[in-house]
Amino acid sequence: MRAPDNTMLNAFVPGAVDLPAADQQLIDRRAKAMGPAYRLFYEKPLNLVRGEDVWLYGADGTKYLDVYNNVASVGHSHPHVVRAISNQAATLCTHTRYLTTEPVAFAERLLVSFPEEIGHVMFTNSGSEANDLALRLAFDVTGGSGVIITNNAYHGTTHLIAGLSPSLGPGVLPYQNTWLVAPPLDADGQAFAQRVSAALEDMRAKGIKPAALLIDSIFTSDGVAAGPKGFLAPAAALMKKEGALIIADEVQPGFGRTGDSMWCFTRHAIVPDMVTMGKPMGNGYPVAALALRPEVIADFGAKSRYFNTFGGNTIAMAAANAVLDVIENQDLIVNAKKVGDAMAQALRQTAGLGEVRAAGLMLAVDIIDANGSPDPIAASRLVNQLAQKGVLISTSRKDGSALKIRPPLTFSLKHLDFFMEKLLQAIKYK
Amino acid sequence: MRAPDNTMLNAFVPGAVDLPAADQQLIDRRAKAMGPAYRLFYEKPLNLVRGEDVWLYGADGTKYLDVYNNVASVGHSHPHVVRAISNQAATLCTHTRYLTTEPVAFAERLLVSFPEEIGHVMFTNSGSEANDLALRLAFDVTGGSGVIITNNAYHGTTHLIAGLSPSLGPGVLPYQNTWLVAPPLDADGQAFAQRVSAALEDMRAKGIKPAALLIDSIFTSDGVAAGPKGFLAPAAALMKKEGALIIADEVQPGFGRTGDSMWCFTRHAIVPDMVTMGKPMGNGYPVAALALRPEVIADFGAKSRYFNTFGGNTIAMAAANAVLDVIENQDLIVNAKKVGDAMAQALRQTAGLGEVRAAGLMLAVDIIDANGSPDPIAASRLVNQLAQKGVLISTSRKDGSALKIRPPLTFSLKHLDFFMEKLLQAIKYK
Repeated sequence: MRAPDNTMLNAFVPGAVDLPAADQQLIDRRAKAMGPAYRLFYEKPLNLVRGEDVWLYGADGTKYLDVYNNVASVGHSHPHVVRAISNQAATLCTHTRYLTTEPVAFAERLLVSFPEEIGHVMFTNSGSEANDLALRLAFDVTGGSGVIITNNAYHGTTHLIAGLSPSLGPGVLPYQNTWLVAPPLDADGQAFAQRVSAALEDMRAKGIKPAALLIDSIFTSDGVAAGPKGFLAPAAALMKKEGALIIADEVQPGFGRTGDSMWCFTRHAIVPDMVTMGKPMGNGYPVAALALRPEVIADFGAKSRYFNTFGGNTIAMAAANAVLDVIENQDLIVNAKKVGDAMAQALRQTAGLGEVRAAGLMLAVDIIDANGSPDPIAASRLVNQLAQKGVLISTSRKDGSALKIRPPLTFSLKHLDFFMEKLLQAIKYK
Repeated sequence: MRAPDNTMLNAFVPGAVDLPAADQQLIDRRAKAMGPAYRLFYEKPLNLVRGEDVWLYGADGTKYLDVYNNVASVGHSHPHVVRAISNQAATLCTHTRYLTTEPVAFAERLLVSFPEEIGHVMFTNSGSEANDLALRLAFDVTGGSGVIITNNAYHGTTHLIAGLSPSLGPGVLPYQNTWLVAPPLDADGQAFAQRVSAALEDMRAKGIKPAALLIDSIFTSDGVAAGPKGFLAPAAALMKKEGALIIADEVQPGFGRTGDSMWCFTRHAIVPDMVTMGKPMGNGYPVAALALRPEVIADFGAKSRYFNTFGGNTIAMAAANAVLDVIENQDLIVNAKKVGDAMAQALRQTAGLGEVRAAGLMLAVDIIDANGSPDPIAASRLVNQLAQKGVLISTSRKDGSALKIRPPLTFSLKHLDFFMEKLLQAIKYK
């Protein structure tokens, strides 16, 4: 299903199906109080009241296996994270203009996960703010304004970054100096580099200086482009030659999801100039960050300051620190690889599905019709059938013809069995 | 003291004074890990480890009376808010694409505090994101791009909003269609309207259509312009006549601080088209919002969607809801008026201080020399003397020549006595 504006995949369409009276009433109250720009997931929206590890619970007692949410990445309501937030909230919540230890110690800990070229970490509240700051710095240090992104990219929701998020649909005005390139779903790094090269040439012809290539390292909204390893290196080399920056948007793939390491960009044999991160960073606590090469900000930092009231506050740091603890203690990167690989294999062995593109627990599956053509209507039907059967996923790609699968990183082989069982049942209705 | 870039008031200047070895070491680690764009407060930065109500505690055991922080507005580590956050974190943290009750119920509760023309609430993570969204909508609904702000305004930190925050200094590129007007520190509403009128005329002459007047309802960074009531109405009427919007930035004055009602704009006998809020909304939990007239978003909502991953999540709503509980249960708006009025009176009776501009617990005091001229050096010395004596405030105005005073709303007459005692001691060193 699409939203009435035809922009959002897997959207609830008001009036399309009958709903329980209590749900309809809450939906009406919501539209009145929160206005017309909010959308809900699913033909029949889900009223959720509790979460625990990979399970979400509805107000009516229904239990859902969460195979979709990449924010509660170490599992819903993880007790170690809850405790860290509660303890810090009871102790001190303050900002980075005081000399608290928490942001310094956390930044140092996080930097250990990066190549040595990445020397600083700055804190924001959301991936949108992190991408927005990255672009501000890219404009400043390059003196350029041209930005290359992929066709169906999603990078966030500020004025600047919404304009660099074509997946938001035609209702959003694009940032004026945007160049779009097709994502490398065919895994052909040379062809992708050629598209980037053509964009750069066109930019130069129009008198615009390049500032950045901004890419989701796993191309989540574009349908997941997972490999082969190193396939982004040619495009990155081109940007470097132009004096423009590479911004790796790790808001979705980061923090171990792709199963090889903490950061998906390491798959590409590149070291980006800036790396943005967010969603899973605090397991739901609003915290995000920008990691960067010191040379990007040396000049900006000498002439300007950056302050973000909540960004890097002591509770945000406690939450983010606890998430790193869990990733390490529960060996979640190894788990993402093991369970993700098993899931990709199971999906590839399932009759009637199209191509599977996957890295760890970030997977996309093309849904095709009998002729092998993309079938977004079948994909939508599958997603809604699965929700009815207690399994939550969504769709991806510009036309919505792929399944998007990205459970919490604590997802086990047992959960995978449950998921595959329900998927096989749902496929009958495809 | 100013930051080396001459932009931030009350900034720590590296190398200017000798510091304890442990602090110097932490400052060095911080600069290395977090980069050169972060600034610290005070000649001698404060290493804080605990907060309780209006008190903050340093790592060395020093106790500070907080007469400055407007985020922990119902008091540091307020147990009711801490409990609400902890309980919700242990239950469910999820987003607005599921049909949870929490954002709906909170939006409804918040709307009760607004005039009936304000019909919707949308959620973000920061005041910056709220102002950014307000401008996006203003551009969309007016088709204009011209924005009027005050000379030393601060509205936030995204690319767009930093460009509309001249208090960030000359290192930040202004948004291109910005018109600056002097703030109405003289409380002359007609003269302010004339400046707005001249800006509109100039805008029209340059072929730019007006989009919005964006103002902090109490002009916090401009030096606090507190009255008389109704003095913004003439400027607002002018904007309306041009088909442009009024955005009341209540990120600093909102939630009862100014002592008359929840929202400072009610002092101005206007109903803004949009109202942004943030800092104190979750007492430190990153939550912010935009309240607006439905006609502003009707068209945008029909063609586009708005989603903010953390914005309006169930924990943010629990925190914000608990803050409203405390404001009501502890009668904090009445307290802000009572203690704020007493503070203004005490300051006006203190020899050697300049003009006091105040509304509730948002106060500015001009610091002047023997000839009555603005004396930013004396203001800086006072702020640092007070910190040494265990009292935290900061400065305001473009030149830093005013004291900025805005304690948590639980500030009592007893705390006021303590503050005045220390202030009188510090004034000797002015």
